[in-house]
Amino acid sequence: MSFEIKEKDLLGRIGKLKTKSGTIETPLLFPVINPSVQPVPPQRLKDVFGFEAVITNAYILKKRYQNKPVEEGLHKFLNFNGATMTDSGAYQILVYGDVEYSQKEIVAYEENIGTDIATILDIPTGWRVTKEQAEVTVAETHKRAKEFFNLKTREDILWVGPVQGGKHLDLVAASAKEMGSLPFNIHALGSPTEVMENYRYDVLAEMILTAKKGIPIERPLHLFGAGHPTMFAIAVALGCDLFDSAAYALYAREGRYMTENGTWRIQEMDYFPCTCPRCATETPKTLMIKPAKDREIFLAEHNLWVCIAELKRIKQSIRDGRLWEHVEMRAHTHPALLSALKRIKNHKDFLEMYSPSIKSSGFFYFDHEGLARPEITHYQNRLLTRYTPPTTAKTLLLLPQTRNKPFHKAPEMKKIRQLLRILGPELADKVHIAVFCAPFGVVPFELDEVYPLSQHEAVLPLDLETIGHVADQTIEYIKQMPYSSVTMLNNPKVWSNYVESAARKACTEKGIAFDAVEANEISSRQLIANLKAALLKQLSN
Amino acid sequence: MSFEIKEKDLLGRIGKLKTKSGTIETPLLFPVINPSVQPVPPQRLKDVFGFEAVITNAYILKKRYQNKPVEEGLHKFLNFNGATMTDSGAYQILVYGDVEYSQKEIVAYEENIGTDIATILDIPTGWRVTKEQAEVTVAETHKRAKEFFNLKTREDILWVGPVQGGKHLDLVAASAKEMGSLPFNIHALGSPTEVMENYRYDVLAEMILTAKKGIPIERPLHLFGAGHPTMFAIAVALGCDLFDSAAYALYAREGRYMTENGTWRIQEMDYFPCTCPRCATETPKTLMIKPAKDREIFLAEHNLWVCIAELKRIKQSIRDGRLWEHVEMRAHTHPALLSALKRIKNHKDFLEMYSPSIKSSGFFYFDHEGLARPEITHYQNRLLTRYTPPTTAKTLLLLPQTRNKPFHKAPEMKKIRQLLRILGPELADKVHIAVFCAPFGVVPFELDEVYPLSQHEAVLPLDLETIGHVADQTIEYIKQMPYSSVTMLNNPKVWSNYVESAARKACTEKGIAFDAVEANEISSRQLIANLKAALLKQLSN
Repeated sequence: MSFEIKEKDLLGRIGKLKTKSGTIETPLLFPVINPSVQPVPPQRLKDVFGFEAVITNAYILKKRYQNKPVEEGLHKFLNFNGATMTDSGAYQILVYGDVEYSQKEIVAYEENIGTDIATILDIPTGWRVTKEQAEVTVAETHKRAKEFFNLKTREDILWVGPVQGGKHLDLVAASAKEMGSLPFNIHALGSPTEVMENYRYDVLAEMILTAKKGIPIERPLHLFGAGHPTMFAIAVALGCDLFDSAAYALYAREGRYMTENGTWRIQEMDYFPCTCPRCATETPKTLMIKPAKDREIFLAEHNLWVCIAELKRIKQSIRDGRLWEHVEMRAHTHPALLSALKRIKNHKDFLEMYSPSIKSSGFFYFDHEGLARPEITHYQNRLLTRYTPPTTAKTLLLLPQTRNKPFHKAPEMKKIRQLLRILGPELADKVHIAVFCAPFGVVPFELDEVYPLSQHEAVLPLDLETIGHVADQTIEYIKQMPYSSVTMLNNPKVWSNYVESAARKACTEKGIAFDAVEANEISSRQLIANLKAALLKQLSN
Repeated sequence: MSFEIKEKDLLGRIGKLKTKSGTIETPLLFPVINPSVQPVPPQRLKDVFGFEAVITNAYILKKRYQNKPVEEGLHKFLNFNGATMTDSGAYQILVYGDVEYSQKEIVAYEENIGTDIATILDIPTGWRVTKEQAEVTVAETHKRAKEFFNLKTREDILWVGPVQGGKHLDLVAASAKEMGSLPFNIHALGSPTEVMENYRYDVLAEMILTAKKGIPIERPLHLFGAGHPTMFAIAVALGCDLFDSAAYALYAREGRYMTENGTWRIQEMDYFPCTCPRCATETPKTLMIKPAKDREIFLAEHNLWVCIAELKRIKQSIRDGRLWEHVEMRAHTHPALLSALKRIKNHKDFLEMYSPSIKSSGFFYFDHEGLARPEITHYQNRLLTRYTPPTTAKTLLLLPQTRNKPFHKAPEMKKIRQLLRILGPELADKVHIAVFCAPFGVVPFELDEVYPLSQHEAVLPLDLETIGHVADQTIEYIKQMPYSSVTMLNNPKVWSNYVESAARKACTEKGIAFDAVEANEISSRQLIANLKAALLKQLSN
């Protein structure tokens, strides 16, 4: 195995990828090296910035430099002593329709220059293509992939098998399955460039997740052309391990300043919102009077520092089990990213399957987007498939969440304990207490210390979708569990009547009794009396 | 005037504050200097980090160093050639109940050491105090403030008048009004430390906004004790100009690593998610083997870099008119910050009054929290108070928003132009077209290029509160405008039936005709025919 997974969160992971030039840590960004116009020398990328690997284009090398990289070897040619990856010219096929080399020639060239990671010459699908055209690219890519295994002669290079299909998700699924069945070391999602240029990150999210479901989960996935730090977090969360960036240099040439939150033109800047070693000693004013070439190098280096910082934030988040929080924050830098985040709920079971659901730390719940979190899916599935209330339970006493957790230790619960004492042990045994809470739905009292039922913090006031979700979960719970009645304490300030109506409806449909007591603006004494009356009525039926 | 406002966004501003030791730019963070344990020398704060001002505590100076700072002068004593601010011992009153110096002594000391900005000896309210106790602190602070103006002898020092009242907002309002009526140069919100320690940023937001409404808007506002970069953005947006941080040093002593997104203990870190000059050349592993003192200095300096970067991000956002976006992103780093953001809608008219509503760039709309944006309030107020439809308009044709903007130029509108041609000029004149869209509500076609009606991007799918808001705005619009009927084209995929039901209800209540046509899954030809039939029916009534 060339790829070893060290830490996981969501579909993101910190991994070690073994190449013949050393082991590199993922998630990883390959800066794109263009030997003819390279603003930052490759070896400086490693020594100063810490990039362990770079990518360059074998097709362009062959066309421009012919045999020189073969004679010198790619590492010496680039003057880079880390790991190298080569692309194959497939992107040029997308742009120009065809290239003048066959796959056989490209594969031989990649082997001969001794790259560490290499790409077959696939046929990118592109963005504005019909399903029929897309089918052709998928079929041709698969054909070339199979051919490739007869062409390759070296065993020490890691080969990348791109998944095509574009926005046609059934084709992406088929392509992923086919490519995944071949013995590639790495997969890539083919040409998402145009999808990203059109800011259709929602479509991109579906493409990535569809590809992930088809390829073996233990192989790394490269997202070609994704070089902007705003989208690293969501791409990693969806299972991308490798990225490449020509953007750091292209943006620099155009005077554009990247940040993890967006892009500026330097003319628009009064401040550098950054502390990288370049920005710490420069202002936009001092930069603007420097020669154009110096500005370009400044920007290229700044752009690289920003990419590195974001990857480190992502890695630390994975290690902390807080990648979701990081993604959610970053998704609020561009509407297209938040649209993408909203798609994840369509795949929440897949996410839950491969993501750790027990963690060392709690989590923050902001908004209904968070309902796709694996911790929530995990709890809800288990509750409905594995849980049964205590056998003595006749009536369900459903209480609203408290600010303090665990719920059963919250100060508000003093009243409830008092109520149970008043009822006496025999009746109290027939009352089963559960809390309805965001984002989990119904939490039986005896489970409320199980992770993460007390180890989370939800934003108040709740958003309507979240309230609706809790209402839906309450319906499910009541329908499935063998109570003969339900008594609910509602807190309309937080929940309005959504959960109460839902619970009432579920009881009516099930043909069991339902009663609700309001918590607002009454004394503890009155509250206990009301709850007691309701419970006694239920239990006497 | 010692304070000049250069740029504004929301209630935040970039300002120039003139002190006798030079002009400093706000929003500004004063690092707290503790002369007896100071991890970073004051002059280094200026020369390397660019801090133009520092703060120290006059009460502690007087107690520990007595006359030395008087003899040397504060600047020489601290060895700092920028601007200095002094606190007065009020925080020590809060913690210890009282201090051994009178206000008279403290004020004289502050004048004698020659600080540039000084604080009166007010009485902080604190957090867990009854309304009666709080009233005493407010009254006593006001009494001392009035006394102070008889004590001061120098005219070249900027004096800070703190606003007290704690969480009791009516007291805060009264205190702000009283303190604001006195000739202070700067105000401060007294002792929010405990509010922040309890993560009640929602309460803090209300306190800040209440104080802002009482004090003269043109004076800077200092938020005492707010030293964590996660909350600078929202505090600036609410109108705070000055901050002080002892946290950078206190956190460093406790091994805590600040970021703009939260805090880590260094033992928990595998990566430094930062590119500051310190973090660029260090890893948690290499740091952990260094001597404790070096670690502390490393952390203090890193913490300061992080604070600087966040302030620069905030300033650039103000300059770009994108402070709301920055705040919204940052609010997704902690539930308490998002809870605070949710409070702003209670003050949206105040925000609109002092915030520019015309900007050079468009904006991003993520979620219903954004409904508090001044651009939206501004448009809606003007539409309902100043707009009337063309006089020929009989029926309102209400169309759903398009992805492309301006709406009237979107490809989907080709059908509508065709429809108008079919109707002929006479009938077409009686049809007034408007679009219902998030987040603005109803936008008449002829206004759709007015800023920011085409210069925004909203996340799809929309959240329920936003849909509800558009429905409410549609009701308001229909009720107020003199149409004799409404025809609506609904797109249930985006809007479900919320806006349609709202429009129907408004028409019924008003006693005018309403008809709706569904846009989904029908041909253009069919759509035009359906709309034509509906309009002809309306116009023939």
